[in-house]
Amino acid sequence: MLNPSAGQRGPVEHERREQIIEAASDHLRHYGYTKTTVADLAKAIGLSTAYIYKFFESKRAIGEAVCSICLGEIADAARAIADEPKPAYDRLRRVFLELTRRGQQLFFNDRKLHDIVAAAVSEDWSVCDNHDAAILEVVRRLVRDGRKAGEFERKTPIDETCRAIMLAMEPVLNPISLEQRFDTLEEDAGLLASLVLRSLAP
Amino acid sequence: MLNPSAGQRGPVEHERREQIIEAASDHLRHYGYTKTTVADLAKAIGLSTAYIYKFFESKRAIGEAVCSICLGEIADAARAIADEPKPAYDRLRRVFLELTRRGQQLFFNDRKLHDIVAAAVSEDWSVCDNHDAAILEVVRRLVRDGRKAGEFERKTPIDETCRAIMLAMEPVLNPISLEQRFDTLEEDAGLLASLVLRSLAP
Repeated sequence: MLNPSAGQRGPVEHERREQIIEAASDHLRHYGYTKTTVADLAKAIGLSTAYIYKFFESKRAIGEAVCSICLGEIADAARAIADEPKPAYDRLRRVFLELTRRGQQLFFNDRKLHDIVAAAVSEDWSVCDNHDAAILEVVRRLVRDGRKAGEFERKTPIDETCRAIMLAMEPVLNPISLEQRFDTLEEDAGLLASLVLRSLAP
Repeated sequence: MLNPSAGQRGPVEHERREQIIEAASDHLRHYGYTKTTVADLAKAIGLSTAYIYKFFESKRAIGEAVCSICLGEIADAARAIADEPKPAYDRLRRVFLELTRRGQQLFFNDRKLHDIVAAAVSEDWSVCDNHDAAILEVVRRLVRDGRKAGEFERKTPIDETCRAIMLAMEPVLNPISLEQRFDTLEEDAGLLASLVLRSLAP
């Protein structure tokens, strides 16, 4: 508001930023995050390093933006399942299987991007907290729906229930844990989802 | 049996081996596993490298032996709780809290030893499979006891139940996952144990 031209420049800047993220994403998916410098990125995109620093304060900020898009798509997929007119029981199971499948796909088909997400988790980037909060929100909605419909028990405080579910699903959802079990990932996700659903029985 | 003196040499060799493990354990707990060579160990213990290789084929074999003792004590603690004349429900919860507490102690008070165990897990040393099998056996015994006593449901195949429980507790039991959550470890262990117990309700 202090800068009268900010509002006008906004949309163009926003578009520029999106273009940089997209080009950075392509580059990082190919060459990886660790080995790439901001100078490499600038060169690949055909912009100056200084220009990129106008939009992102560090390489990590670019990594966070790339991660955010990837995780945003995964959270959208979970929300789409939660929106279906089906029993909460069924939706909750499918949300977990879909999240596991997406994590698996990333690991197998887009390893460099998986590595960025894994770095984000192990270095506790804020983009991970946002993603966890988005998934927790989906879980909370489904637990609430299931409680209303009499599908789930109502004695346990809902906060406790939802936090425990997020923890229990971690072995198949956390990208670092996932690396340790990719041979049995789908089966493990099914076992965990069933255990969680048994824990919700009225 | 082909060597008539093998039987006689056995006890002395066994004792020597134990002494080497004990000395190696002290050294590794102080200096860490990664930076220590077999030559360092030999020097610290006051033996020749060749003599140590008589008992252990590699540095990793020594690491496995040190791990095995550490994990053996943890499994013994779990078995001791399982032996108590208490409801299965109560014993199962306490087994998980005790296992979490032991892992936490290792991490805070014996970090170098924790690092060896973490290496064992991430490199999938056989000592970890043995430990997992020992804990699974404790869980299976408690689930069986609880089913007999009518404390737990009996519909789910017991293999599925036990494997799912092992998976669900991983966020607080796996030394690598534990590193990511040491701030909330005890609370998380309690939340997970409660979820598991709800999943077992008849």
